[in-house]
Amino acid sequence: MNEFELIRRYFDRAPDRALLGVGDDCAMLRPNAGLELALTTDMLVEGRHFAAGADARSLGHKSLAVNLSDLAAMGAAPRWALLALGLPAADAKWVEQFAAGFFALAERHGVELIGGDTTRSPLLTISITAIGELPAGVALYRSAAQAGDDIWVSGELGGAALALRRPEIAEAKRRLDWPEPRVELGERLRGLARSAIDVSDGLAGDLAHIAERSRVGAVVEYERIPRPAVFKSLDAALARECLLSGGDDYELVFTALPSRRDAVAAAAASAGVAVTRIGRIEAGSALRFVDRDGAAVDSAFASFDHFLS
Amino acid sequence: MNEFELIRRYFDRAPDRALLGVGDDCAMLRPNAGLELALTTDMLVEGRHFAAGADARSLGHKSLAVNLSDLAAMGAAPRWALLALGLPAADAKWVEQFAAGFFALAERHGVELIGGDTTRSPLLTISITAIGELPAGVALYRSAAQAGDDIWVSGELGGAALALRRPEIAEAKRRLDWPEPRVELGERLRGLARSAIDVSDGLAGDLAHIAERSRVGAVVEYERIPRPAVFKSLDAALARECLLSGGDDYELVFTALPSRRDAVAAAAASAGVAVTRIGRIEAGSALRFVDRDGAAVDSAFASFDHFLS
Repeated sequence: MNEFELIRRYFDRAPDRALLGVGDDCAMLRPNAGLELALTTDMLVEGRHFAAGADARSLGHKSLAVNLSDLAAMGAAPRWALLALGLPAADAKWVEQFAAGFFALAERHGVELIGGDTTRSPLLTISITAIGELPAGVALYRSAAQAGDDIWVSGELGGAALALRRPEIAEAKRRLDWPEPRVELGERLRGLARSAIDVSDGLAGDLAHIAERSRVGAVVEYERIPRPAVFKSLDAALARECLLSGGDDYELVFTALPSRRDAVAAAAASAGVAVTRIGRIEAGSALRFVDRDGAAVDSAFASFDHFLS
Repeated sequence: MNEFELIRRYFDRAPDRALLGVGDDCAMLRPNAGLELALTTDMLVEGRHFAAGADARSLGHKSLAVNLSDLAAMGAAPRWALLALGLPAADAKWVEQFAAGFFALAERHGVELIGGDTTRSPLLTISITAIGELPAGVALYRSAAQAGDDIWVSGELGGAALALRRPEIAEAKRRLDWPEPRVELGERLRGLARSAIDVSDGLAGDLAHIAERSRVGAVVEYERIPRPAVFKSLDAALARECLLSGGDDYELVFTALPSRRDAVAAAAASAGVAVTRIGRIEAGSALRFVDRDGAAVDSAFASFDHFLS
C-alpha cells in the first residue's frame, strides 16, 4: 500500500464542519462569526517522548491528547486537527491502530481531522496541530494571574512521571500512555478562572510560566498537591520529584479569585473532574513550595527541559 | 541555552495580526469576518527531504516555502504559521540561521509565526502548519477541472529533480534549496483558474491528482513543458524523468477556460511569473503525454511516492 492509499484508507474522512478536508492542497474552514480561534502544535518523537515499539493505539490517543490539553488550558472547544506523520515504513496495521486511537479521542471531543502530511522517516515522528474555538475575550491566558488568586489543579499529578521510573505500576502507566485532556473543565473555566496552563513540563516549571508571564510569585502547600494513592508508599525524594518536576500529566493548573471557590467547585463537578486548591498567587516573583507550617520544602528540582539532558 | 531561551531569542516576536503569539498554551486569532481559512501542514525530515548538514538558512526558507506553496495552490493569502522543530542539539547558531531564512520569507509574504514546539530529536525534523485567508467561495480546488480547460504551469519544471542527480549545476541546486512559492500568482488566479495544485510530487503525479479528483483526463504536449536552458544538453530519458516525475519545483499547475487566456496572461504578468499553456483537460480518465504530432511520449514513470522506495 503506498502513501496515498494509506491516507485514503485510514485518514480520509468527509468533514462535517469544515468546507474541505484531507486530499487537496489545503483544508478549508469557514470560522464562526464572532468566535476566536486557538491554535497549538506539538511534536512527539520516538525515543524521546515514547519508546520504540510503543503501542500504536495509545500513540494515536496521546499525540492528539497533548494538543487538546493545550486547547483546554485556553478554555477553547476543540474543533479541527492536522496530522503530520513520519513513518519508518508503510505499515498498514500500525497506521490502522494509530488511527483507531486518534479517532476514538477525536470523536469524543468533536474534532475533525482536516489535513496532514505523511512521509517516511527512520524515526517515528508525530506532529499535530489542533484548532479550537471560543467566544471573544474569554480565553485563559498565562499572563492574567493576580496576587491573591487561589491556585487550583485538576485531577492528580505525578503519575506519568512515576511510570517512567516504575513502569510496573499499572495505574501510573495508564496516566503516561492515556492522558485525559481536561477539555470540558477548560471550557467551563472561561470567565471563571483568571489564568491557566496545562501541566506538561511539571508543576514547578508550568507554574513558573504563569508567574513569569503574569509578573507574580506563587506559594504552593506541598502536601495539598493531589497524587495517586500509590505515592503513600514512595520514597519522599522520588515523590517530590514526580510531583514537582514530573511532566506529562496534562492536568490543568489555574488561578481564580477566592470569591469564586464555590463556582470553581461547581464547574469541576459539572465537568466530572476533581479539583484541588493547592496555594495562592503572591506579589513578587518567587515560586515557593512550603509544608503545613509554611516552612520551605526542599525543591532542588528543575522542570522538564527538552535540552537539559 | 535551554529550550525556552532558544525560543525566546529567535522565535518569540510580538504578533501584529494575531491576538496572542508564541509563549502561551495556544496562539489566538480573530478571523476576519466573511473570509475562509486555508490550512496546510508539511513535515521535512533529515535524510529524506534534505541531507544531514544542509544549510540552516535554506532549510528555514524551504520548510516555510513548501507550505506557502500549498496556500498558493488554493489561492489563499498567507497569514500565520506554527513551527514544530525536532533538533539534535540546542545549537544557537543553527537556530539563528534557520530563523533568518524562515523570517526573511515570512516577512516577504506577511506571515506571522504565532506558535510552535521545540524538542530534541536525533534527526532534524521540521513540521510547519501554515494558515491563509481568502474570500468565501473562490478557493482553487483540485476537484473543479472540466473537460476543455487549458492546462497551465508557472515558471519551469525539472530543476529541483535535476539537482538531486547533478548537484554541481548551480541553477538547478538553487531551485531545490530555495523554491519560490507562487503566492501572488495564486491570489491572482482566484475566480480565474478553475482548479490548481502545486508541483511537489512531479507533474505527472500532481496532474493525476487533479484528474482523479475532477473525474477527468488530461493530455499534455511534452515539448511545451517549460524547463531550464540546461535541459537542452541532457540525456532525453533523464530530462523526461525530471520533467514528469521530478518533485520539489513548487510551481503551480492550474486549469482555466480557453476564453480566459488573455486574463491568465495578464494575471501572470502582474505577479511577475511566466506561465505556459501545456495541454488541456479531456473527458475520460487517462493522463497522456504526447509529442507535437500527438503520438504518445514514453512515460514509464511514477510520481514521487514517499513509500515506494
